[in-house]
Amino acid sequence: MSHPPAQTRVPSLDALVESLRALPGIGPKSAARLAFHLLQHDRPGAARLSEALQHALGVIRRCARCNTYTEDEICGTCADPRRDPRQLCVVESPADLAAVEQTLTYKGLYFVLMGHLSPLDGIGPKDIGLDLLQRRVVDGEVEEIILATNFTNEGEATAHAIAQTLRPLDLRITRLARGVPAGAELEYVDLGTIARALVDRRGA
Amino acid sequence: MSHPPAQTRVPSLDALVESLRALPGIGPKSAARLAFHLLQHDRPGAARLSEALQHALGVIRRCARCNTYTEDEICGTCADPRRDPRQLCVVESPADLAAVEQTLTYKGLYFVLMGHLSPLDGIGPKDIGLDLLQRRVVDGEVEEIILATNFTNEGEATAHAIAQTLRPLDLRITRLARGVPAGAELEYVDLGTIARALVDRRGA
Repeated sequence: MSHPPAQTRVPSLDALVESLRALPGIGPKSAARLAFHLLQHDRPGAARLSEALQHALGVIRRCARCNTYTEDEICGTCADPRRDPRQLCVVESPADLAAVEQTLTYKGLYFVLMGHLSPLDGIGPKDIGLDLLQRRVVDGEVEEIILATNFTNEGEATAHAIAQTLRPLDLRITRLARGVPAGAELEYVDLGTIARALVDRRGA
Repeated sequence: MSHPPAQTRVPSLDALVESLRALPGIGPKSAARLAFHLLQHDRPGAARLSEALQHALGVIRRCARCNTYTEDEICGTCADPRRDPRQLCVVESPADLAAVEQTLTYKGLYFVLMGHLSPLDGIGPKDIGLDLLQRRVVDGEVEEIILATNFTNEGEATAHAIAQTLRPLDLRITRLARGVPAGAELEYVDLGTIARALVDRRGA
């Protein structure tokens, strides 16, 4: 029995609400609440956000080697001579790249797809930088491709498509291990994960 | 077992994520997802949002009569000669004002508190425009104050405080009726609401 928020009859306020609604996960009521909050309690924050958006749009581009966001021709990771150029970890997004980095266990390079295959949404191989990846891996240095796409349906399909595409090349292609997450109690782990961990069990 | 997103080492991107985090209800991961979405899929939307924020900050101010947001000295509702100046409906926010307007059943004027009393958050009578309201109601035209603050603890306390403050003036002070919402099945209505509706029952 909820109702959509009415227009406020203040054009600049309605325009602000409308542009906040364009954000994913922000519905009409949330957009109105955000707009009121910014105007009422956080005008400096609103100004900062406006400037940050404008600045980001102006300077952020894609790394020519790994496709992630950067302000330079080549991103800091790709340009770092201490990284091992023989390993290339393929992730869906810069957030996933950051997650792998935070583990402090990987010293190779990355390739960021900026998405995953999603035929239902019309997102095919060309939309996720698969051709960029194909050109990237033939630099003569890469020896192993580590597929670190998500373990969702789309991520699995994406990993499968990449493996198929790169199979003709003389590269080792691996996938992150599936199994029981660290710290988990078996009682609370979903059965699919336990089943898979049984199949993939390893010598102790 | 979740982890906070790492900094991306792209200053303009980190600044954007940081300024999105300042929005209420947006945590670090949501902020990163919003930033990636805008850069990847909706650059025009990001530009529109930046401009809408800047424009709104520049032109939006408070109505000198009812305290709501407007681009003019007096808002459209207060300036409308067809509204009944004898009734003044007090609401917490422009969103609440819009909700009352959408009912198409109220033809009086409004006063927007832009908040509610919340002693625990240090929000006292002065922070919610109670002094503005006191000056507003003595225009010689207002006869009835309709308290339409929310039926939350804070909203009830705010209504009570306003009633106390305005009691000395010769005005009729009313509160929105409490009761069973339209379309509700009693079986699913909370007991406090039913109890209150019994006490406030009216001739049928």
